[in-house]
Amino acid sequence: MVALDWGTSSLRGWLMDAEGHVRGEYAAPHGIMALPEGGFAAAYAQARSGLGADPALPALACGMVGSTSGWRDVPYVACPADPARLVEGLGARDGDVLPIVPGVRLDGPTPDVMRGEETQIMGALSQHPQWGASSIMIMPGTHSKWVRIEGGQIESFRTFMTGELYAVLMKHSILGRPSQGGETSDSVRDDAFRRGVLQAAASESGLAPILFSARSLFVTGVLPGAATGDYLSGMVLGDEIRAGMMAIGGTAPGADTIGRVVIVGEDALSRRYARAFDLLGLPAPRMVGNTAAAGLFAIACQAGLVRAVVSAKGLS
Amino acid sequence: MVALDWGTSSLRGWLMDAEGHVRGEYAAPHGIMALPEGGFAAAYAQARSGLGADPALPALACGMVGSTSGWRDVPYVACPADPARLVEGLGARDGDVLPIVPGVRLDGPTPDVMRGEETQIMGALSQHPQWGASSIMIMPGTHSKWVRIEGGQIESFRTFMTGELYAVLMKHSILGRPSQGGETSDSVRDDAFRRGVLQAAASESGLAPILFSARSLFVTGVLPGAATGDYLSGMVLGDEIRAGMMAIGGTAPGADTIGRVVIVGEDALSRRYARAFDLLGLPAPRMVGNTAAAGLFAIACQAGLVRAVVSAKGLS
Repeated sequence: MVALDWGTSSLRGWLMDAEGHVRGEYAAPHGIMALPEGGFAAAYAQARSGLGADPALPALACGMVGSTSGWRDVPYVACPADPARLVEGLGARDGDVLPIVPGVRLDGPTPDVMRGEETQIMGALSQHPQWGASSIMIMPGTHSKWVRIEGGQIESFRTFMTGELYAVLMKHSILGRPSQGGETSDSVRDDAFRRGVLQAAASESGLAPILFSARSLFVTGVLPGAATGDYLSGMVLGDEIRAGMMAIGGTAPGADTIGRVVIVGEDALSRRYARAFDLLGLPAPRMVGNTAAAGLFAIACQAGLVRAVVSAKGLS
Repeated sequence: MVALDWGTSSLRGWLMDAEGHVRGEYAAPHGIMALPEGGFAAAYAQARSGLGADPALPALACGMVGSTSGWRDVPYVACPADPARLVEGLGARDGDVLPIVPGVRLDGPTPDVMRGEETQIMGALSQHPQWGASSIMIMPGTHSKWVRIEGGQIESFRTFMTGELYAVLMKHSILGRPSQGGETSDSVRDDAFRRGVLQAAASESGLAPILFSARSLFVTGVLPGAATGDYLSGMVLGDEIRAGMMAIGGTAPGADTIGRVVIVGEDALSRRYARAFDLLGLPAPRMVGNTAAAGLFAIACQAGLVRAVVSAKGLS
């Protein structure tokens, strides 16, 4: 099959055999906001061609390609969501070229949405069925997701704008100014990150009353300007962990929940999260890389789009 | 006396008689980052001249003019701070043209600083000595201050970057996009503000897990794009009130503390805070306008710079 993770800024593809092994990879900057001439159809044809995919091979995509700004608007599926619900919501009617995995919606007074992460979650669960019983999956990124998995389902989740919040505060607020110019040692920067993580994780009233300390520590001469960004980075991450544990783990950091944390994502960012866990004295989270391809394969099997030689684990 | 509130972007001045009454006002865009030719000395001379002040009249200034980027770096005074401590810290040695009120510093693992607000606080206390026993002063602004007053002293305080956070998120993050273009009614916008205040005040884990709902509510069709800014404004303010009550009030909103809240500041912004208090079912806070002139007079009396005909209330 042809598996596509089609986001806002990039398009990644995998050619997969009937056992779910990756036989070829493809990457293009053809996110839904950066399409080539010919639009979605052209980008899709180039991906198939780049993967050397036989025209008869079925395909499945996930990500922002299924949003209102995508190729086709595929409505969100409500929580709790499992592979069967995702298959029901597949955006593929007769004549559609490319079926698209629906995103997932959390209803309530402060609703939330994901699109693409649901597929990575199903990939992680197909590779590690034991995580399906009860776990907390963290998917670091510009908009991090914290996801509660219960009984193989996405029970609830929360988006944390940690990466974007850090970026806009550094670039556009008074907090970013002292970090421009000036240098300091790696150990001073690492200490500042540590300090930020610990302070924010300990702040019961949240980030709001201590955010300005990223400036006060500089103004009072405690922190060199060049380390204030590391302190801020530690604070927003420490706050995410504190709040994520309360909102998704249903408990303060340190309780039993923490033993069931899985970080799904790219290496560098995941390691930064793991480092924060370590600084907080919490058990090391389990870690797994990008599982989009595995998720697309698992959902395609469930949908009968492909007939797997070895049935995808944890999905039947 | 000549009283000057000299900040980053503007310089305000008052000519005051021996009874502390304002006899003349002055305003110029000569903040410390926007000085006229001739620098601080020229801006000061223009202010005195604009006020028609006799050369023999004493003067006192407060604000960023006493910072490292100001006319003279006047070191912060540590909490707890009262008029006597501020007078001790006055930045005026022999030969100095203009004495400057020191800012106040809160020490600790997440320190905080203020410069200018300490003078407004002393002004409010000189006008309303009964607030000195025990109160919470809120000074709304780009960087709001929440201040705990005990026994006539600034016991502790916290800076909330609420105004700046809202501005950078609206202007530079994904949350601001839906609000561009499009219109909606005042009642829809007011409902959105209300919803944001209530949600954030009720979020025990803070703003982080619900911030993204400013987008999700739009994406799921609950909130029109044109009202997402009002929702975000309500959320950051609701979070400030929740966190401020915990961090400075030492209690959750609704407890006794709330009866001792005073809002010090300009009308429009203060009314927005008062509206949020009302939405949360809290008693109306006491309100007072800009008290910088009264504060400068009170501190000048305490310092012996002026000999008041009627001694400033609450300061002896």
